[in-house]
Amino acid sequence: MRKYKISEIVVKRLPLYLRCLTYLDKMGVPTISSHELGHKLGIKPSQIRKDLAYFGEFGKQGIGYDVSYLRGEIRHILGLTEHIKVAVVGAGKLGQALSDYILLKREDFDIAAVFDRDPAKIGMEVGGVKVSPIENLKEIIQEKEIQMAIVTVPANAAQKVVNLLVDAGVRGILSFAPIAVTVPEGVRFYNVDFTMELQSLAYYLTGQGKNEY
Amino acid sequence: MRKYKISEIVVKRLPLYLRCLTYLDKMGVPTISSHELGHKLGIKPSQIRKDLAYFGEFGKQGIGYDVSYLRGEIRHILGLTEHIKVAVVGAGKLGQALSDYILLKREDFDIAAVFDRDPAKIGMEVGGVKVSPIENLKEIIQEKEIQMAIVTVPANAAQKVVNLLVDAGVRGILSFAPIAVTVPEGVRFYNVDFTMELQSLAYYLTGQGKNEY
Repeated sequence: MRKYKISEIVVKRLPLYLRCLTYLDKMGVPTISSHELGHKLGIKPSQIRKDLAYFGEFGKQGIGYDVSYLRGEIRHILGLTEHIKVAVVGAGKLGQALSDYILLKREDFDIAAVFDRDPAKIGMEVGGVKVSPIENLKEIIQEKEIQMAIVTVPANAAQKVVNLLVDAGVRGILSFAPIAVTVPEGVRFYNVDFTMELQSLAYYLTGQGKNEY
Repeated sequence: MRKYKISEIVVKRLPLYLRCLTYLDKMGVPTISSHELGHKLGIKPSQIRKDLAYFGEFGKQGIGYDVSYLRGEIRHILGLTEHIKVAVVGAGKLGQALSDYILLKREDFDIAAVFDRDPAKIGMEVGGVKVSPIENLKEIIQEKEIQMAIVTVPANAAQKVVNLLVDAGVRGILSFAPIAVTVPEGVRFYNVDFTMELQSLAYYLTGQGKNEY
């Protein structure tokens, strides 16, 4: 067993590699070098080799990586060999949009439960399941053994909802609430803020950025 | 003027630095070293110093960075010194959720126009503006001088919508459509796929990842 810690930044790059390898595999590309992969992703080949080396020896000198094999290995590393159950808390527009997206994609994740505190939303079908009252969160999450959740509640409710999820046994949380939330050790929390993508796009509209093509 | 190209990966880290600096500034923290900043963000201090050095000399030996000053400089580099107009194409659940989020946040970006092809949605208020028919896209985008757009249309409509936007003069596009799209040189295109965040979260539920805290 490894004794060293792999940084979150490395783990966050794995899905990027996976997406590219899945595309290459579909296109029938059999092998790819770290240079070609790096060129496609805008990542240094040395970085890719280093990232992958944390998990094993996947490349062959002079040949590169077997696309289909490496894709399978990364899926295995990420624990995507079977569908993962996800709970969604907050059945507003964003919760509905994300749940329906996951349902339609039918890849890697299944919406196993959706919760809201608004009585008007209880029983509505979102992401292929009926919305349950937030009071039943712990019971349903434990019964269905759900370990991952998406939080789309307003900022002022985020910490409370995250506490409920952690108490119910959820260990991975993706929050779209625009606020910092604390979680205990052993729980991984990601805060998604798509305005950060807009901010970096904005750079390319500036005088400095617009020549960088 | 710089002659070298700054990688997109570097530009994408700037909003991360900005978010942390904004928080520190609010907390009244006057200075921070690249080591402390790196620790907060899970990024190597040497990487932070290298990233920032592309844009100028911001740190002082033995003192670190002036939080408020560096925050202002990064906002300036990203072109965020005034609000940027954004068009949203696709007034479905996701388009509505994102537009309302931007409207509520009132930071950096203004929803200047929302488009849809569904007659039932035309005239609806989304993100503080009335939804316009997609036929008027070019006229409205040029009249309002909009340079940035968010695309939330289904995968099969994405390339067509992106072509319309590019033709109207949009130069930065953030797409939530789960499909690869091509854009001409001079246009920056980001594809957001939040399932990649879920995939990297999944790692921490595996036997391998769960000890990494």
